[in-house]
Amino acid sequence: MRIAISTGGGDAPGLNAVIRAAVLSAVDRGWHVLGIKRGYAGLMGDDDVIPLGRDQVRGIGHLGGTILRTTNRGNPFEYPVKQPDGSYIEIDRSDELIENARNLGIDAIISIGGDGSLAIAQKLARKGVRIVCVPKTIDNDVSGTITTFGFDTAVTTAMEAIDKLHTTAESHDRVIVMEVMGRHAGFIALHSGVAGAAHVILIPEIPYSVDKVCEAIEERERRGRSFDVIVVAEGAYPKGGEESVIGDSLPGQARRVGGVAEGLARQIGERTGKECRSLVLGHLQRGGMPTGYDRLLATRFGGAAVQAIEDGKWGHMVALQSPDIVTVPIEKALGMPRRVDPKHDLVRTARRVGISFGD
Amino acid sequence: MRIAISTGGGDAPGLNAVIRAAVLSAVDRGWHVLGIKRGYAGLMGDDDVIPLGRDQVRGIGHLGGTILRTTNRGNPFEYPVKQPDGSYIEIDRSDELIENARNLGIDAIISIGGDGSLAIAQKLARKGVRIVCVPKTIDNDVSGTITTFGFDTAVTTAMEAIDKLHTTAESHDRVIVMEVMGRHAGFIALHSGVAGAAHVILIPEIPYSVDKVCEAIEERERRGRSFDVIVVAEGAYPKGGEESVIGDSLPGQARRVGGVAEGLARQIGERTGKECRSLVLGHLQRGGMPTGYDRLLATRFGGAAVQAIEDGKWGHMVALQSPDIVTVPIEKALGMPRRVDPKHDLVRTARRVGISFGD
Amino acid sequence: MRIAISTGGGDAPGLNAVIRAAVLSAVDRGWHVLGIKRGYAGLMGDDDVIPLGRDQVRGIGHLGGTILRTTNRGNPFEYPVKQPDGSYIEIDRSDELIENARNLGIDAIISIGGDGSLAIAQKLARKGVRIVCVPKTIDNDVSGTITTFGFDTAVTTAMEAIDKLHTTAESHDRVIVMEVMGRHAGFIALHSGVAGAAHVILIPEIPYSVDKVCEAIEERERRGRSFDVIVVAEGAYPKGGEESVIGDSLPGQARRVGGVAEGLARQIGERTGKECRSLVLGHLQRGGMPTGYDRLLATRFGGAAVQAIEDGKWGHMVALQSPDIVTVPIEKALGMPRRVDPKHDLVRTARRVGISFGD
Amino acid sequence: MRIAISTGGGDAPGLNAVIRAAVLSAVDRGWHVLGIKRGYAGLMGDDDVIPLGRDQVRGIGHLGGTILRTTNRGNPFEYPVKQPDGSYIEIDRSDELIENARNLGIDAIISIGGDGSLAIAQKLARKGVRIVCVPKTIDNDVSGTITTFGFDTAVTTAMEAIDKLHTTAESHDRVIVMEVMGRHAGFIALHSGVAGAAHVILIPEIPYSVDKVCEAIEERERRGRSFDVIVVAEGAYPKGGEESVIGDSLPGQARRVGGVAEGLARQIGERTGKECRSLVLGHLQRGGMPTGYDRLLATRFGGAAVQAIEDGKWGHMVALQSPDIVTVPIEKALGMPRRVDPKHDLVRTARRVGISFGD
Repeated sequence: MRIAISTGGGDAPGLNAVIRAAVLSAVDRGWHVLGIKRGYAGLMGDDDVIPLGRDQVRGIGHLGGTILRTTNRGNPFEYPVKQPDGSYIEIDRSDELIENARNLGIDAIISIGGDGSLAIAQKLARKGVRIVCVPKTIDNDVSGTITTFGFDTAVTTAMEAIDKLHTTAESHDRVIVMEVMGRHAGFIALHSGVAGAAHVILIPEIPYSVDKVCEAIEERERRGRSFDVIVVAEGAYPKGGEESVIGDSLPGQARRVGGVAEGLARQIGERTGKECRSLVLGHLQRGGMPTGYDRLLATRFGGAAVQAIEDGKWGHMVALQSPDIVTVPIEKALGMPRRVDPKHDLVRTARRVGISFGD
Repeated sequence: MRIAISTGGGDAPGLNAVIRAAVLSAVDRGWHVLGIKRGYAGLMGDDDVIPLGRDQVRGIGHLGGTILRTTNRGNPFEYPVKQPDGSYIEIDRSDELIENARNLGIDAIISIGGDGSLAIAQKLARKGVRIVCVPKTIDNDVSGTITTFGFDTAVTTAMEAIDKLHTTAESHDRVIVMEVMGRHAGFIALHSGVAGAAHVILIPEIPYSVDKVCEAIEERERRGRSFDVIVVAEGAYPKGGEESVIGDSLPGQARRVGGVAEGLARQIGERTGKECRSLVLGHLQRGGMPTGYDRLLATRFGGAAVQAIEDGKWGHMVALQSPDIVTVPIEKALGMPRRVDPKHDLVRTARRVGISFGD
Repeated sequence: MRIAISTGGGDAPGLNAVIRAAVLSAVDRGWHVLGIKRGYAGLMGDDDVIPLGRDQVRGIGHLGGTILRTTNRGNPFEYPVKQPDGSYIEIDRSDELIENARNLGIDAIISIGGDGSLAIAQKLARKGVRIVCVPKTIDNDVSGTITTFGFDTAVTTAMEAIDKLHTTAESHDRVIVMEVMGRHAGFIALHSGVAGAAHVILIPEIPYSVDKVCEAIEERERRGRSFDVIVVAEGAYPKGGEESVIGDSLPGQARRVGGVAEGLARQIGERTGKECRSLVLGHLQRGGMPTGYDRLLATRFGGAAVQAIEDGKWGHMVALQSPDIVTVPIEKALGMPRRVDPKHDLVRTARRVGISFGD
Repeated sequence: MRIAISTGGGDAPGLNAVIRAAVLSAVDRGWHVLGIKRGYAGLMGDDDVIPLGRDQVRGIGHLGGTILRTTNRGNPFEYPVKQPDGSYIEIDRSDELIENARNLGIDAIISIGGDGSLAIAQKLARKGVRIVCVPKTIDNDVSGTITTFGFDTAVTTAMEAIDKLHTTAESHDRVIVMEVMGRHAGFIALHSGVAGAAHVILIPEIPYSVDKVCEAIEERERRGRSFDVIVVAEGAYPKGGEESVIGDSLPGQARRVGGVAEGLARQIGERTGKECRSLVLGHLQRGGMPTGYDRLLATRFGGAAVQAIEDGKWGHMVALQSPDIVTVPIEKALGMPRRVDPKHDLVRTARRVGISFGD
């Protein structure tokens, strides 16, 4: 048996722990493992594939990033090809991918990635590729699994930032607005905000009103608390405003990071007269060593993916249904992305402990 | 409405976050809250009860320990009373507790504690006390809830210790045996060991053989890896040996901490000829700031406990059934303590990635 | 003896440790201590002064911020007063301050602050106020002392951010530009950049050329390293460009935070064609728990300040001359601010290990 | 030019940063570098020497341990050789070492190690070996340099442990005794104890009396503080007792770790009637990622060692004389080991803030 592993989309803490566990679990079965570099690019033209054995995955379980590299622009069905005039056209190179995989003797593929990678995997599965998936999302917005690796680390990074901002905000009687990831789902903002005892949390699922945010600040002022820490998801938007649209980004078109916090800080400063500062946490949320929770979940996912191959669960992804790891059809993850339920006990508790959602 | 909060048993990171969330959730409903000091001691003779409001719980959510103090010797049904000759007898002071609570106008009690506290709460509930519980256990061995707060922090502390030991063990070609908590359940050893990439994990649920442990070390040696990190739960015992017995400890009879690791290191050193060192992590596992995961879970538990009072769920405890917080009858927690299932996917994955359980 | 303590300027990790040590050292001598709130504002009109004893400083040594609050706008010699038309004029309220201090029976003042606070202290000393100072600067740019508290924590925060950015930059083959504090002195960028193994470090003391930065990136590319982490001090500027000017900020005129990194990332992206991202670390550098180094130094400074009062060292500040704490006249600190010496061994070593300064 | 690098004695966080900086600084000069494995063992019989270039030191600067391995039993002048009866004799193999180095074309050696390694280096220098040293000691007891790398990390690890113990001690009204490294010098105990706000610090330089320790505990009890955290250096001893003697350890004779804390906790428990617990921090102090301070110092040391070779400073070691790195003759370090001066400002400040030294 010869399997291949690929990582796609934005990196997340725990990717290397998945790779390590999958390789060791496969080697333990006497299988051979190949690593495909940069999403599927290693199977399309570049021919960039490396053998993975014990030595290659030694000591990587606690490292951030992915030893296989990754990319946001590796959809083999819509592969961007640069034209002489500098523009890009997208072509279908999936047959080339499948052909190359066959030539390399690859029997099955483990694809680790987010919704984009899962959709690609489903298409490949329909073309007969024997593939199983490991869901990956910093934002925790993939359906079909209670959570994924990387999310706990991102929440921890954001919470530790809130911890730091608390003392400086209080010392200076300031409002500090911190922007975290989450274009469509506010899980990072919600979890880090509650864990870090933020005073206001703004998420895409609950459109906010600047007036309400200022009211919360002034209510605290009346109780003698003259500083505030506000956590805002990058996708949060005002009532009556418009939700941001997902756009595919071509090479050179960088996804814009940040921007919500700075405008919000200015608005709040103008209305309340308070000193306001803003901060965009940005790529810090993706980087660094995974937490224990994420290392464990990633290790279980890696082991379960190899088990899924042994069980012939083609077109399935591994998933957490606490306290067990199960497999579910990829379809489960490709419907509605998971979002924060405004009626969930966490939101209700947050309101009870005095957190405003600006609504 | 006037409620009281009590913390009992060994402290766990997150206790203050539970207290904070419960107080704020109660204050938000217009209720009054009292804090009972040192388990139930504050209601028996000492009369040590403090009012808890916003000011008292400000900024405590990320602090370890409990602002209410705690004790392992506060069972009101078997209260230790020192005799003139220095010995202790145990008397039932539950009526006094109930009487004092009535005099203080306490309508309901939130009891935060482990299996001991849960059993006491059940007895009090049967005597008509309106009580709801929040389960607490570092060891993660309470049934009825997927996990409790404090466990993730303990695992993180143990995992970070393993991370540290890895480099020094490797530099010196040594075997280092680290002992963690877990008299009857090996969850801390299992989770921290897998997350920290330990080479051997010994837990009470899987009796070990020193020969097998040494075989695992020698197998690694043959593959050119001349160092090993072994994580052992304090309750782990050799095949054919005897499981340690739970003993109630009276004042002056300290629960013995540590001992397994040192003996094991000596045995391994004698058999393999390798340099061995041991370490008992001990109270470090109880202390310090809770992780984000634990702060969040503790906050949800605190809020849910107040909700349970509002809903009249007497004799119930709050529990995590991912992704929701529910309430279950205390009985659910008082049957068999939860233990590691040797057939669970985590154990199987651990074996696949090369971890030995010494069996 | 009755002394008063004041904290001024931007907050720095360790302020509370100074306050704690000074209070405990004074109480140990049988003295009384007052805390002046928000710089000197507590002595001008607001009359906001609190007694400080053992209870007030218990458990604050490891907390960020300052329990006395602080402000950047509290110069008693140029105190901003709002006019009916919304503008501000500055008036000299130093006599009022001195009068109020006398009325409160204050015998001596410990002023903890940066260059602004030191200059104010010197003026007050010349008017007969018995004052000793504790130097404070995140940027490490105060002369007369080898280092101050808060700097090690800021460097640690920046270094940990670089650690996180390394893995995500490498996984995506990206250039990430991180901006840290340092308008006139590049110590934070230099120390965190070397400790975190950044590839390019840009500081005010060594004007850079974008061409040279891009050359360094391309040189790495040729060696097969297709990612880069660049640390830039906020005050870094291109050769032939102009150094930013220190401006006093009035209420409502916030000091601009960030901006260098974003522009630089765009320039590098345009010239190299690589994916570039930027990040402004901002207030994270001020916040949070001080490191052990800073807690220790702050504690020694606090104790030494009280000793300086006992010794009548008016107009002096405490200072580190490793391994001893000494006192030096405030003048020593008010000449040229300390800046990175481009010929210092640390810069030379940085170049030797392959770090580019863009020059 | 071809140089070789060796690491000897107990490992310390920062060793890899020294190696990395030395290799990169040498490569930058066009030199070749060899790494000698396990102290000097690689030059005696085993012939275990590896080439070190950019690729070998990539990404190791933040890793604990040493990629060259180390040993406490590698003195070439008294090399332990096992006899048929299992005993050891020590023979002089220095000529063999020198011969092998010559055969490998080694022009100069960088020896990174503690007092043992420095003494060996001096002997080798007297036999004509061109050698420069980098001092290494967790305990900070090497003279001639203000501090060395590894110490700040060890202090940080110990301080974080104290932070954790504080909350659990307070919650349970307990006395917790924590033992740290320091057989002859109490720097780790002193620095971590002051930074972590311990209540009692016991060090070899100030013999203690258990009565005085108990008095301090009871004095706190009278002030309403019923818990205590005690930090004790492993070499601390009671007044009238005897200081432990340094003994060379042969293979199989492990240096005893721990023991002081447990006995002390028992004594205090018996005399005060309080619940006491003990903890030995042990090898956790050696392991893990170096702090920013240590990474920086180690990097500077590594760069300075190569510079010292270029300057022909044979028989010298690099040293910190803040803020500069200098070189000093090895003799400077081999006189009296540095110890805590009981009259140093840090000890005096510690007493002023209420810390007892048990004297």
